[in-house]
Amino acid sequence: MAAPAGDSLVALLFLDLAVVLALGALLGALARRLGQPSVVGEVAAGIALGPSLLGLLPGDPVALLFPPEARPPLAFAAQLGLVLFMFLVGCELDVAELRGAGRVVGAVSAGSVVLPFCLGLGVAALLWPRGGDALALFTAAALSITAFPVLARILAERRMQRTRSGVVALASAAVNDVVAWCALAVVAGIVTARGPWSAVATLAWTAALVLVAVLLVRPLVGWAARAVGGSPRADAVLFAVVVQGLLLFALATTAIGLHAVFGAFLFGAVVPKDALREAAPTLVDRVGGLSSLLLPVFFVVAGLSVDVGGLGWSGAGEALLVLVAACVGKLVGAAGGGLLAGLPARDAAEVGVLMNARGLTELVVLGVGLELGVLDGHLFTVLVVMALVTTAATGPLLTLIARRSGREASALGGVR
Amino acid sequence: MAAPAGDSLVALLFLDLAVVLALGALLGALARRLGQPSVVGEVAAGIALGPSLLGLLPGDPVALLFPPEARPPLAFAAQLGLVLFMFLVGCELDVAELRGAGRVVGAVSAGSVVLPFCLGLGVAALLWPRGGDALALFTAAALSITAFPVLARILAERRMQRTRSGVVALASAAVNDVVAWCALAVVAGIVTARGPWSAVATLAWTAALVLVAVLLVRPLVGWAARAVGGSPRADAVLFAVVVQGLLLFALATTAIGLHAVFGAFLFGAVVPKDALREAAPTLVDRVGGLSSLLLPVFFVVAGLSVDVGGLGWSGAGEALLVLVAACVGKLVGAAGGGLLAGLPARDAAEVGVLMNARGLTELVVLGVGLELGVLDGHLFTVLVVMALVTTAATGPLLTLIARRSGREASALGGVR
Repeated sequence: MAAPAGDSLVALLFLDLAVVLALGALLGALARRLGQPSVVGEVAAGIALGPSLLGLLPGDPVALLFPPEARPPLAFAAQLGLVLFMFLVGCELDVAELRGAGRVVGAVSAGSVVLPFCLGLGVAALLWPRGGDALALFTAAALSITAFPVLARILAERRMQRTRSGVVALASAAVNDVVAWCALAVVAGIVTARGPWSAVATLAWTAALVLVAVLLVRPLVGWAARAVGGSPRADAVLFAVVVQGLLLFALATTAIGLHAVFGAFLFGAVVPKDALREAAPTLVDRVGGLSSLLLPVFFVVAGLSVDVGGLGWSGAGEALLVLVAACVGKLVGAAGGGLLAGLPARDAAEVGVLMNARGLTELVVLGVGLELGVLDGHLFTVLVVMALVTTAATGPLLTLIARRSGREASALGGVR
Repeated sequence: MAAPAGDSLVALLFLDLAVVLALGALLGALARRLGQPSVVGEVAAGIALGPSLLGLLPGDPVALLFPPEARPPLAFAAQLGLVLFMFLVGCELDVAELRGAGRVVGAVSAGSVVLPFCLGLGVAALLWPRGGDALALFTAAALSITAFPVLARILAERRMQRTRSGVVALASAAVNDVVAWCALAVVAGIVTARGPWSAVATLAWTAALVLVAVLLVRPLVGWAARAVGGSPRADAVLFAVVVQGLLLFALATTAIGLHAVFGAFLFGAVVPKDALREAAPTLVDRVGGLSSLLLPVFFVVAGLSVDVGGLGWSGAGEALLVLVAACVGKLVGAAGGGLLAGLPARDAAEVGVLMNARGLTELVVLGVGLELGVLDGHLFTVLVVMALVTTAATGPLLTLIARRSGREASALGGVR
């Protein structure tokens, strides 16, 4: 019954992958059964496999399942899943959506970024006065995030994409995403740069990369799609092109001093979606299959740094304050912006609730903070709890508003 | 321009992945242009990135691109790609094909296994008299391999699936694959077992696993396919089910003392293909996309152990002798079996040439031998050269036979 020696690490990694996928699928299905996006369950699975729950059992099962030598391969799988996912997020972002929505979207997205950002700066100054500028800026950026992909799926499941509040929230979330990612990129640039000139250089390189992406890469990918479209190998060839493109962009942003996710997101945002979809109909399924397999590993790698039990009472107090600031910032900021721009009260309330969903995007941001060394395990745990609670609250709050207004909430199904 | 410290290994791995994919795609396309299966080019890319070619450059670029700390993550990715691929190979194996083909298939497959196996034992005794039983058995098994998946694609590209020689070769390759894998499993069991009883235990566990697979897992997967079929999440759910199933089977065979590939192959062979295809049409594309991304990593990990230049003249002599034994064994064994069972001479010749393609399957077998410690780098290189040459010779030899017989060879396109 002895496993071959050279195989034992790979066998352990296979076991890890099987456990992670099984628990993620189980809790994801449970979350959907409860009317929640499945990402809430998947993140909970990641936390459960870390010190927060599995680590409480005797015999140190966390160290047995995820020993130090297993961490680099798992981190690689997690980061690969992450950049694939960020590419898909970039793909879903349709800038054309924003045209015509105009003034209301501008007001909502401005309110939903500015107020949480200011509250974040205030909370950081209050709770961690010696944390430094980087920590304060990072907390502020984290509170300003809205999860565009989770939002899109919540709206689709509730058949709200065509309602006024749905359209406004989705367009505002898109603007919010772009602004928040840019802000985060600036913060990350400041943190990693070794001086003011280095930050300027990072910004200049980023601008150059965006220009290259729009002016060179976008037409090139479109040309490739037209060149191989119709051939039986089109899907395989374009899959290879897309994966290499996102890897190279991830490398480029890493080399610039940003995080790999920015490059993958940028590449996804600029590739010509229609040309790719026409030439290679299974392309998104292929990338999505890969990402759905590896992304749960990211949740677990993140969950290994989360220790809810270790927060203690003072940590719980911090988490509560951060949570209140996050909710108030988004609800008041987004709904207030909507009201000022002329939205009816009920629509404004719905928009505020929707913009409060932080979901997976927030976890990505926090992972960046952890990697950059801006966040320690304690702060990471506080902010992960905030992200989970605000995302889980979106569905019930929408149902509450719908009940109050007498309109019935539609049945809930699979939401990521 | 400094990359964040925690990111540097992941960034290097992204770079490795991009380089591996780019060179594999390039040489794969070149191989197809030359009328070869693309796997010939992809394996050549893996060898080129190892000590055989890249290692000849000054400054040790192999160690820079693939340092020791990058090896475990790459090995994990390679093994993951491999078990996914073996699952697909198992899926393609259709036992129903064999019915009715009868006597000819029996004769061809018997000849194409027995003669190369005996010649392999002889060559091993001649070249490496002190290598021990395990090495001799392993060499014999390696010479007996026919690459079922490569064969299927060569036939499809040459529109030979419906010709007599095509049908016979494909069915014989299927039988050959099953026999060769079983033989290899026995050899692997003998090598890793610590005594005769341990080998018996391995065989008993294997038999039990096959029974569980056929009697329990097959109906369970079929039930799952029918249960979720038609739902919008069917593809995602069944993808998760299939990946977990193949991981668990890979783990089971590893625990038994065999290699992970056997479990993945077994799982692929027993899952109900029609039910899965009906319930989840994109399932194979998803698994295939993942496998096509990770399998080139396997070629590179294998290529890192290949050092063609290090063979020297005596090594080249060994490689030549092994090559002759491999070709004679397959050509004479398979064609002779066909002739004895009543095939016309030309069909028998075509069957012999087709059965000589060893392709990717052989590389998998050799990788198992390397991991088990049966093969060292020198023998591994000798056998990889044999596998590449026999696979690359299949197309030209078929064209030669076709020209001699006056029948024109159809145009060659993408063959894996």
